[in-house]
Amino acid sequence: MIKDKKALTPARILVGGFLSLILIGTILLSLPISSVEGSIGIIDALFTATSAVCVTGLVVVDTGTHFTLFGQLVILGLIQAGGLGFMTMATLIFLLLGKKITLKERLVIQEALNQFSLEGLVRLTKYILIFTISIELIAALFLGLRFSVDYGYKLGMYMGLFHSISAFANAGFDIMGIVGQSSLMAYQNDPVVVFIIMALFVLGGLGFTVIVDIYKRHSFGKMALHSRFALVLTGILLLIGFLGVFLLEYNNPDTLGEMPFYKKILPSIFTGATTRTAGFNTVDTGSLRPATLFFMSVLMFIGASPASTGGGIKTTTFGVLLVSVVAMIKGDREVHIFNRRLPFEIVLKALSIIMISLVIIGLATIILSRTEQQEFLNIFFEVVSAFGTVGLSTGITSELTTVGRIIIIVIMFTGRVGPLTLALAFSQRMKSSNIRYPEEKVLVG
Amino acid sequence: MIKDKKALTPARILVGGFLSLILIGTILLSLPISSVEGSIGIIDALFTATSAVCVTGLVVVDTGTHFTLFGQLVILGLIQAGGLGFMTMATLIFLLLGKKITLKERLVIQEALNQFSLEGLVRLTKYILIFTISIELIAALFLGLRFSVDYGYKLGMYMGLFHSISAFANAGFDIMGIVGQSSLMAYQNDPVVVFIIMALFVLGGLGFTVIVDIYKRHSFGKMALHSRFALVLTGILLLIGFLGVFLLEYNNPDTLGEMPFYKKILPSIFTGATTRTAGFNTVDTGSLRPATLFFMSVLMFIGASPASTGGGIKTTTFGVLLVSVVAMIKGDREVHIFNRRLPFEIVLKALSIIMISLVIIGLATIILSRTEQQEFLNIFFEVVSAFGTVGLSTGITSELTTVGRIIIIVIMFTGRVGPLTLALAFSQRMKSSNIRYPEEKVLVG
Ligand SMILES: [K+]
Ligand SMILES: [K+]
Repeated sequence: MIKDKKALTPARILVGGFLSLILIGTILLSLPISSVEGSIGIIDALFTATSAVCVTGLVVVDTGTHFTLFGQLVILGLIQAGGLGFMTMATLIFLLLGKKITLKERLVIQEALNQFSLEGLVRLTKYILIFTISIELIAALFLGLRFSVDYGYKLGMYMGLFHSISAFANAGFDIMGIVGQSSLMAYQNDPVVVFIIMALFVLGGLGFTVIVDIYKRHSFGKMALHSRFALVLTGILLLIGFLGVFLLEYNNPDTLGEMPFYKKILPSIFTGATTRTAGFNTVDTGSLRPATLFFMSVLMFIGASPASTGGGIKTTTFGVLLVSVVAMIKGDREVHIFNRRLPFEIVLKALSIIMISLVIIGLATIILSRTEQQEFLNIFFEVVSAFGTVGLSTGITSELTTVGRIIIIVIMFTGRVGPLTLALAFSQRMKSSNIRYPEEKVLVG
Repeated sequence: MIKDKKALTPARILVGGFLSLILIGTILLSLPISSVEGSIGIIDALFTATSAVCVTGLVVVDTGTHFTLFGQLVILGLIQAGGLGFMTMATLIFLLLGKKITLKERLVIQEALNQFSLEGLVRLTKYILIFTISIELIAALFLGLRFSVDYGYKLGMYMGLFHSISAFANAGFDIMGIVGQSSLMAYQNDPVVVFIIMALFVLGGLGFTVIVDIYKRHSFGKMALHSRFALVLTGILLLIGFLGVFLLEYNNPDTLGEMPFYKKILPSIFTGATTRTAGFNTVDTGSLRPATLFFMSVLMFIGASPASTGGGIKTTTFGVLLVSVVAMIKGDREVHIFNRRLPFEIVLKALSIIMISLVIIGLATIILSRTEQQEFLNIFFEVVSAFGTVGLSTGITSELTTVGRIIIIVIMFTGRVGPLTLALAFSQRMKSSNIRYPEEKVLVG
């Protein structure tokens, strides 16, 4: 089987690699040395491993208090391997496909590598690794110094490293339970922690190609279309997220209501931004208003940019749909972004991704509504969070039934590898049809 | 202004006509002779008139007990004018546009009329009127005879007429309150009432062009692409609706749970079918499970077929999106239905309609979640029901705040005239761009 080279498509390598990682993680996490007391059940070990590898961050047990240092390091390893592995794979895949789909010739890495020899792939992978680890270590140092003030040097530095890696990978796992805290709520108005964590997950969520484009090009106008589009959309989503949360939660006594005006700003920015599939929270998610939870579900559904550590249907997928609607309203025959024409296949691909995602989320929500005794909105929020590999929860994760846990495991996995493998499948299977049927219209709307 | 012929686009006539009808209805319904006791407030009169003209069926006061015979006849008139007026206008508009968009030459009416002279339009309108009134009267007779058994000849016949018109127009208004009943719940296992009402709203929801195609062609293969597509989709949606409701409600003690197996069938069929935007119910909507309410929301969102008395984004809009996804999965470069190629504009139009509709529903849901003290799912269901002009409610309509009532009024109106005028605007504004931009791709998914 393994020797059958034909069967080793990138999609299969990705799915196979992820499944192996999850399997190894499940075994390690269910060992007694991973848990502080006794050992974790197989389903919960599988849940935690899947959540870590898929950089989701939903947890059935508290990472900081339930797991030993060994267990926490296993989780950190799974996050790093899952987040980085996926980003590297996806970048390689898209660049390889790039020959066909041309992610613009002047794209830095492509230039540098000239052609995709095995040597080139190894070099690119090395680049990504060096880039990622540098970013993570620098952020870990600053975060570590900040945490050291509160918890001493040793624990502070460890916490800095853990949360730096978790943030860049958009994993959302935290070990704040060690010091009796929940996620980053104790730091909701600490600009150092808030902005370093945000910078990490926003960068990670932009993807390697965009980061390199920013690093090498400086000027926005010189960047590849994809980079500019992803940056603009990310900016718009961050702004809308901030405004939405700020306005909807302004006078909610359980969240921002009692805070003075200037203290409402940072938590609103962070809560809006964390839907870029980071999954950390500085405000209690379960106390947010229904309107806010639904609003955040929409943002989580859109998620981060492709070939990144983030999830969701992707900013650019949503962006393509958006410009298509604008084109239709303006009466244009073609879809444009920044004076570049989008091929029809891209619109069709974006349309397919959103439709399939909506169907998966719809079905999972209906099934979980039957298996779980929870409020509808909490279930819906949980499903979108799992599918978008976000990791935010109103608090129902640890209350899920066994069937519910298994469904969420499947959704996390589908949400992480699904959209990319779909995009891949769509890219590769496009064939030219020999039969050309006569055209006929139907009424819509 | 009125003399400015250029300003009188079909969309403006439609919107203007609807607004005038609603205004007249509001005045008449707020008169003391319309109410049994006192008189109805202006907001509630506006709500009822909008609900009737837009054939939605959401009510803030019970139609059978609150309104006098005069008030009920006003409502019936608004339903008939709104349902029939919209269907006629839409049919005319689509046929006029048909010259450009070719709803297939062999489409019966188009053949018969040869060209769209004023005389032709009058004739077509006459056809539609005769057709509709014949169907309504025949059904009214049978329904009336059935109701006469229970409530005597005079009241029975009146009830037959009212519900026949209300059902064909997909209005969902009922006067069962007169005999102390709620909608058609007393007839949930009465095949005569269930099947006549269903036949009426399914026919009305298919639209005039499809009805004529069925009437004239008999053979499915000879019908226009649009008719075949609408029929297949309607069939699939009816089947899925039945199966979904049956499975999800099977053991719900508040609905089907206590019934013997064979008695669960008819209510399941009807509950699944009423989401084709009819709005009658034979099972208490408020007792349905969350999973079922969400499932029905999806079906209500899809709704009925274009240029019909039904609402929603339309079966064919959904169908076009569906076949687009299938095309993508199969790797086809073009989108096909029944061996006919769909032009790109139709896909883009369907995409635009679903995206805009999702945005409107999302925004309305978020706003109502703040203004109303109701469960999230009940609000979401209400918004989708209003937008799809369905009229089903978990029971919160009469509890809505004034702001909430106004928002639902706006949503009912938008949901009724919005998709058509959007489709219209999209059809007319399509211009050929002189600038052809270079093509470039972005990553999605
Ligand atoms: K996450
Ligand atoms: K209705």
